[in-house]
Amino acid sequence: MSASIPIGRAPGASLVQQAMDMVSTYIREHELRVGDTLPGEAHFAGELGVSRAVMREAFGALAALRLIDVGNGRKPRVGAMDGSVIAASLDHAVSTAQIGVPEIWDVRRTIELRTAELAAMERTDEEAAEIEALAEKMAECVDDLDAMCRYDIAFHEAIAKAAHNALFVQIVASFGPLMEVAVPTAWRTRTTDFQRETTIERHRAVARAIRRKDPIVATMAMGDHFDASIGDILKARAGGE
Amino acid sequence: MSASIPIGRAPGASLVQQAMDMVSTYIREHELRVGDTLPGEAHFAGELGVSRAVMREAFGALAALRLIDVGNGRKPRVGAMDGSVIAASLDHAVSTAQIGVPEIWDVRRTIELRTAELAAMERTDEEAAEIEALAEKMAECVDDLDAMCRYDIAFHEAIAKAAHNALFVQIVASFGPLMEVAVPTAWRTRTTDFQRETTIERHRAVARAIRRKDPIVATMAMGDHFDASIGDILKARAGGE
Repeated sequence: MSASIPIGRAPGASLVQQAMDMVSTYIREHELRVGDTLPGEAHFAGELGVSRAVMREAFGALAALRLIDVGNGRKPRVGAMDGSVIAASLDHAVSTAQIGVPEIWDVRRTIELRTAELAAMERTDEEAAEIEALAEKMAECVDDLDAMCRYDIAFHEAIAKAAHNALFVQIVASFGPLMEVAVPTAWRTRTTDFQRETTIERHRAVARAIRRKDPIVATMAMGDHFDASIGDILKARAGGE
Repeated sequence: MSASIPIGRAPGASLVQQAMDMVSTYIREHELRVGDTLPGEAHFAGELGVSRAVMREAFGALAALRLIDVGNGRKPRVGAMDGSVIAASLDHAVSTAQIGVPEIWDVRRTIELRTAELAAMERTDEEAAEIEALAEKMAECVDDLDAMCRYDIAFHEAIAKAAHNALFVQIVASFGPLMEVAVPTAWRTRTTDFQRETTIERHRAVARAIRRKDPIVATMAMGDHFDASIGDILKARAGGE
């Protein structure tokens, strides 16, 4: 998988697009890694025979996509993959009604059944302990919605990390901004102690199965959690949220 | 899920980031939809009290993320979600060794087991017919690697469409550029007629289960296909690809 893949469309691509592709090709051919420095705009502008203005626009677009990291007059560097790019795309698609909440929820459920399964197989002892600790933190913060939601999101991210697949980590992180709205919405529908305790118990069940290295129970427990939560979210929306 | 979610980090965000957030908030608050026009740079620059240069940079970044669509002096418009943003992120992460081929493959497998299952439940008759037709096109093109790979990729995209979840469609599409390299790589390891026929038969099995509305068999058949293909891909890489 080392051939040059142009970003976006190829033949009639704009000059800016060609300039972007040139930087991507440079990164690939020189086998650069995150944090490595790149030549500046002038170098690429000269190579491609385009104006500095075109090259500046290309660098801006590459930076927006987090493929490169430019800032404060430093030399440009190869960027680290960052879920915020996918997050921005998702957030936009939701706010413009291109995708709906049940669609997002199905994708998250699909991804997180697998991260729970993988985490139960791959987790280190430290990761298992951290996941259990986050479930307990949720229980401790049951009267502090903000704190509990932060621990809830962190719980799901810790499971993705314990799955030991960097792409799952990025995808789960990319749901973060949407979750910062959806998680409190779901929690607000859980008004009784019993409802909240039940939800926390579902998190504990996932954490326990991961500690016990039981991928089947971990997957089922995560499925129970999602099935219950999507119900709460849709109830909140029907209620005028 | 209608509160304002800033893209990226909030308090110490750069002027450009603030300008980007302002446009996103405008889109959200005016409930704009894909293709709706936006005010120009001058409007937002005035509102936020920033220079035209800052606003131009923000518009460029929003366009790179496909949140807005600007071009040829037309008015900016709200952009359609476009898997190419995620694709650029994935391609960069692979070419800089931030994620590996087995990790991508696990994510694709996870996603496509679900799209096969959903397609078996949700497909229209036309979609079922198209998926079967694409499997037959692959069989017809068994001696034309380029054409067969195009039909192979189209087959997976047609299943995602038949799942009737726009986010799955985007995610599967975002794997496209990587697949344009990986699919021929896998096919090149299948040198005998028997190997190629077996692979095509696995596609037919998925298509048949979707036509018969059998989600369990569709999921299992897709799983068989992925398990065999990842074997072929890793074999090709071990062989010096």
